[in-house]
Amino acid sequence: MATDAVVSPQPESAREPSAGGYVQPAPDTAALQRVLDGRYAEVRDLVRRNLVDYAGLLEEAESLDRDAFRDRVLEVVLDIARTGQTGFGFPTEYGGGGDIGASIAAFETLAYGDLSVLVKVGVQFGLFGGAVLQLGTKRHHDAYLAGTIDGSILGAFAMTESGHGSNVQALATTATYDVATGEFVVDTPHDAARKDYIGNAARHAELAVVFAQLHIGGESQGVHAFVVPIRVRDEDGNLVPAPGVRIEDCGPKMGLEGVDNGRLWFSGVRIPRENLLDRFADVNEAGVYSSAIESPGRRFFTTIGTLVQGRVSVGGAAINAAKVALVLAVRYAERRRQFEATGDAEELLLDYGMHQRRLLPLLARTYALHFAQEEVAGRLHSVFSGEEDSERSRRALESEAAGMKAFGTWHATRTIQECREACGGAGYLSASRFAALKADTDVFTTFEGDNHVLLQLVAKGLLTDYAGDFQDADQFEMVRLVAGLALDEVVKRTRAHQLFERVRDLLPGGDEWDSEAGLRDPAYQLAMLRYREEQIISSAARRLKSGVDGGLNPGAVFSRVQPHVIAAAKAHQERVVLEAFLGKLDGLPDGEEKRALGLLADLHALSVIEEDRAWFLEHGRMTSTRAKAITREVDDLCRKVRPLARVLVDAFAVPEEVLRAPDLLGPVVVAAEQGDGDDAAHHTLGETAEQVADQA
Amino acid sequence: MATDAVVSPQPESAREPSAGGYVQPAPDTAALQRVLDGRYAEVRDLVRRNLVDYAGLLEEAESLDRDAFRDRVLEVVLDIARTGQTGFGFPTEYGGGGDIGASIAAFETLAYGDLSVLVKVGVQFGLFGGAVLQLGTKRHHDAYLAGTIDGSILGAFAMTESGHGSNVQALATTATYDVATGEFVVDTPHDAARKDYIGNAARHAELAVVFAQLHIGGESQGVHAFVVPIRVRDEDGNLVPAPGVRIEDCGPKMGLEGVDNGRLWFSGVRIPRENLLDRFADVNEAGVYSSAIESPGRRFFTTIGTLVQGRVSVGGAAINAAKVALVLAVRYAERRRQFEATGDAEELLLDYGMHQRRLLPLLARTYALHFAQEEVAGRLHSVFSGEEDSERSRRALESEAAGMKAFGTWHATRTIQECREACGGAGYLSASRFAALKADTDVFTTFEGDNHVLLQLVAKGLLTDYAGDFQDADQFEMVRLVAGLALDEVVKRTRAHQLFERVRDLLPGGDEWDSEAGLRDPAYQLAMLRYREEQIISSAARRLKSGVDGGLNPGAVFSRVQPHVIAAAKAHQERVVLEAFLGKLDGLPDGEEKRALGLLADLHALSVIEEDRAWFLEHGRMTSTRAKAITREVDDLCRKVRPLARVLVDAFAVPEEVLRAPDLLGPVVVAAEQGDGDDAAHHTLGETAEQVADQA
Repeated sequence: MATDAVVSPQPESAREPSAGGYVQPAPDTAALQRVLDGRYAEVRDLVRRNLVDYAGLLEEAESLDRDAFRDRVLEVVLDIARTGQTGFGFPTEYGGGGDIGASIAAFETLAYGDLSVLVKVGVQFGLFGGAVLQLGTKRHHDAYLAGTIDGSILGAFAMTESGHGSNVQALATTATYDVATGEFVVDTPHDAARKDYIGNAARHAELAVVFAQLHIGGESQGVHAFVVPIRVRDEDGNLVPAPGVRIEDCGPKMGLEGVDNGRLWFSGVRIPRENLLDRFADVNEAGVYSSAIESPGRRFFTTIGTLVQGRVSVGGAAINAAKVALVLAVRYAERRRQFEATGDAEELLLDYGMHQRRLLPLLARTYALHFAQEEVAGRLHSVFSGEEDSERSRRALESEAAGMKAFGTWHATRTIQECREACGGAGYLSASRFAALKADTDVFTTFEGDNHVLLQLVAKGLLTDYAGDFQDADQFEMVRLVAGLALDEVVKRTRAHQLFERVRDLLPGGDEWDSEAGLRDPAYQLAMLRYREEQIISSAARRLKSGVDGGLNPGAVFSRVQPHVIAAAKAHQERVVLEAFLGKLDGLPDGEEKRALGLLADLHALSVIEEDRAWFLEHGRMTSTRAKAITREVDDLCRKVRPLARVLVDAFAVPEEVLRAPDLLGPVVVAAEQGDGDDAAHHTLGETAEQVADQA
Repeated sequence: MATDAVVSPQPESAREPSAGGYVQPAPDTAALQRVLDGRYAEVRDLVRRNLVDYAGLLEEAESLDRDAFRDRVLEVVLDIARTGQTGFGFPTEYGGGGDIGASIAAFETLAYGDLSVLVKVGVQFGLFGGAVLQLGTKRHHDAYLAGTIDGSILGAFAMTESGHGSNVQALATTATYDVATGEFVVDTPHDAARKDYIGNAARHAELAVVFAQLHIGGESQGVHAFVVPIRVRDEDGNLVPAPGVRIEDCGPKMGLEGVDNGRLWFSGVRIPRENLLDRFADVNEAGVYSSAIESPGRRFFTTIGTLVQGRVSVGGAAINAAKVALVLAVRYAERRRQFEATGDAEELLLDYGMHQRRLLPLLARTYALHFAQEEVAGRLHSVFSGEEDSERSRRALESEAAGMKAFGTWHATRTIQECREACGGAGYLSASRFAALKADTDVFTTFEGDNHVLLQLVAKGLLTDYAGDFQDADQFEMVRLVAGLALDEVVKRTRAHQLFERVRDLLPGGDEWDSEAGLRDPAYQLAMLRYREEQIISSAARRLKSGVDGGLNPGAVFSRVQPHVIAAAKAHQERVVLEAFLGKLDGLPDGEEKRALGLLADLHALSVIEEDRAWFLEHGRMTSTRAKAITREVDDLCRKVRPLARVLVDAFAVPEEVLRAPDLLGPVVVAAEQGDGDDAAHHTLGETAEQVADQA
């Protein structure tokens, strides 16, 4: 590559053992890529090839008008569908790949490219196709799956309404059974009940899976899903809204303009009884409702629970979008010079301490999240393939998916922003990709479950040991659950006690475990995160209980305790992520890659502890001296990771064709007159292995 | 307004004195607006009227193609120029308003609307016009100012090059004096020296102020500014690039698509000797260079220093963009309901503790930054109007402008992001304004001085007591300055000592001052921020000195100390902002507005202290008990500010016409079936004054 001459990710000097015995690891890019790609390397490579074939789409996103771009996105989606890339998650008998894990890997990798394609794929195959597969039975599979997989049937997923997003149980659309005709009649009772932000609805979908309150004989059976034709062909063969269906375009959006989001209103729309997706409940011709799941709440949350794949997909995609940003920012920072320290050449941005601090902990966290996501995707696969499908594993999956989705998407927002700023004006040009990355990923934090609501779900599970329905986002129920218990029981119910025992197992150094262990001992790092998690969960439980006992109503109690509830979920998820990273490390063979990832895991873990050191100080689990030592260690780790940064981002294997960014990666931005080609010679800010080791 | 029936910003119950004697303040919106609008209320109202007149532009930004939108933006800029809004900063004899303070107020207020208009105004009147005014002399004023003010002359400001943004002294464009013809010859020696991201260059500008290395007789005199015609009329009267000038469009950008950013290359472009902007240096016909400022460095930084108005403008505009986001998010959160606590109606988002925590400290900070910005703008006015123009006041202005620009623009990025997420899917629609707010303001953090580089300037001033040239972004010079001094001298040179004495003046409670004062005592809050500032400055000075003494080269020293240097500047700026807020409060007459702003100042100050409580804990200036008390106080203040939130955002007086956002402010998103019109009745999450007081 043209840029290789300019950068020196691994200066020769750093390979010599220093006085302190520290030698920089020299990981191999391809070997690191194999660690990241894991079990589905071939699937990821298939997607990479498709991304290269359709790389032009990134420019078309800027040049085509909205309708043309939407049609072009659909065209690309249908083209890549033919390669099998989008069908991995469906049964082989309908033309799918029969491998849910592969389907997640493909989706994640697709996030390296245009994100309208990603979301369109998510709507058609994940949300619409997934609902038909998971909520329907053989009659629906036979009718729709083959067409969904090959794209001859285009569908939408009509759950959210203008008036209700997070609180799905309160949806207001109705489907009333008409026993006289054996049909359901679908209605939008008022304007706040219109279906809103529905992907594929404004332009392309013929069918929609519509979530509505099922009414039979004046009685409500709660929210169920129905297949509703929203468009039909007119006499000229054009798609027009079906009778009784009103469709409106949501209008321009911040990003994802290749996805045709729309609004739907239903007015007396009649569908056959068979269009109820009846895996968990059915209505017979006579209008008798039946379900194998007795409790209506349980039934609803079982229904919702099957849709967890969407969250796993979004979390993984977000992490990969963050990778693209890091590739750009790190490669730019290894080329771009600004200001002279000693009078010969200007310094590389990545040799500045602050620049390292801005980018390298984010790079470490990206690896951590990648491995945590790999675990969640693995669990999704084992649950949904039936390898390990139990009530308990479903709950665990739902909790992990919620936590990962929140963490992955917030990480993307933060990382893309930091990387854009680290690329200055050049990063502001659309050709540098940050424009689309920022705009397209922005909605990830609030769709497929608002991140705060998702973290509340996680916390509720932790606080009640899953006594309630996991998917029930009604946090007031948690307050009511707690209200009925004694304080001891509340705290015992939380999973905190088990955690604390595991802290003692990890570091048996008595009360001083936290100040005696080595900072770079993974057991210390994990013990800190476990201890924090335990404390915050217990404390949130106590606060809930004392609020209730103090006579405040459930609303006021929850309002006051909510920040602690969210903090509990975050602490939990941080521990889960670190465990995943350390677990992955444990399983790697000794070698340069393991050494490099070990540095990265330390950087990640200590950055997390440093960021929340106020909490540890407040809770007597850290001295000031130790807190300052952690900051020094993070600085030192940044210097050690700096020479590895290029290899670490190259291992993401984002195809060059989708990076674009001529002003970041091309030759122009380097102060070309000042010493191209022999950087190592005036590496004044960068330090040698000896200097780094002296710090250690 | 339609929405008034739905919200109850000031529930009646809250007005009754509670058991604890706490009564919610009841500020008047118009009175608060007067406090905010300050001295330039009329100017701001003029801009508000113009914003309403051209509110349609916000939709045109979405519907017009790029060229058409750029032309439309220019048209609007010229239209509003006719109202006098954009000319306040110019001398009256050329048709200006002769009031720099008014010019800043107008620019800030313009940020409520489309930001392409804002930036186009900034380029034409601030950068181009400002350079002619500040760097030119009468011949240039006579030739260009009247035309600049009325828009008949359109100009660009060509400083940044692809290879150099922050390091302006290293620009590579050359202007070589040809004594034979009495002309300067302007050249782009290599591709990294092309002028880049230049507003107005791609389409509209006829002239550019070009910054280039002045060469005379083989000798370089450093960077100077020249007026260069970049476009001329061809025989058909069309504007075409001038001979020797190559112009390229920068292409699509993340935002600000109404601004025509371009690239410029010069090849032997000849301009008359008189086109040198010669306020600080001149070249006579014979090619003899002369300047009243002897030192070339000093000359350069004096030149750059006159352009400080751009930074003041951007900082103020960013704060106002954040206000728009807060108006939307607060009004939405006062209407939008989700989840039932007690079975009658769902809860308002703003009654959730977490939602208060997300939005209200940002609202408080917006007020704080507004008042700090008002001070900087006031100083700009007094310096540039000659009221108080000294070396010292210029330095102070440059430092404050740099700090405010960084703080204001980062605050905008963060606030707009948080507010978007707080508005869910509806916030993602372009009609909700967040799309443009996010995309357009994004570049604010890196243009007009990269925020990190600006904070380094601030720190350098603090660390060297302004021994070097303030505008010199070369931080290695700071290291070299420090290198020559003894440690005592280094620390004495910083301004830390003075600060610490002021801490003792504020709270004379001995060593325990920090744990004995009341949390809501402004003297305590200020003492904490001063102490932190003093400590970090001293510590950064010590680290610099010990790095140098330890034999590291200046590059390595600076790289290591850089995060501390940035932290010093941030600590300084936080103190400056809080002082401004408290100073403003002091000057207000007693009353409901002062009481409301007092709560807000407490919320701001304690949020800042809470956010960095790790530092205070580490440095022995806070106990764990106190840290937790601060968190409780912030929670309590959030509950007290919550009923005021609507009035506080209404006082920004953002015209309804530019808010758009039908899905956030209109009736649809409220769960209309569930109890519109009598919110107060089921205000279960919201607490009464008694309950709030019980906490206090």
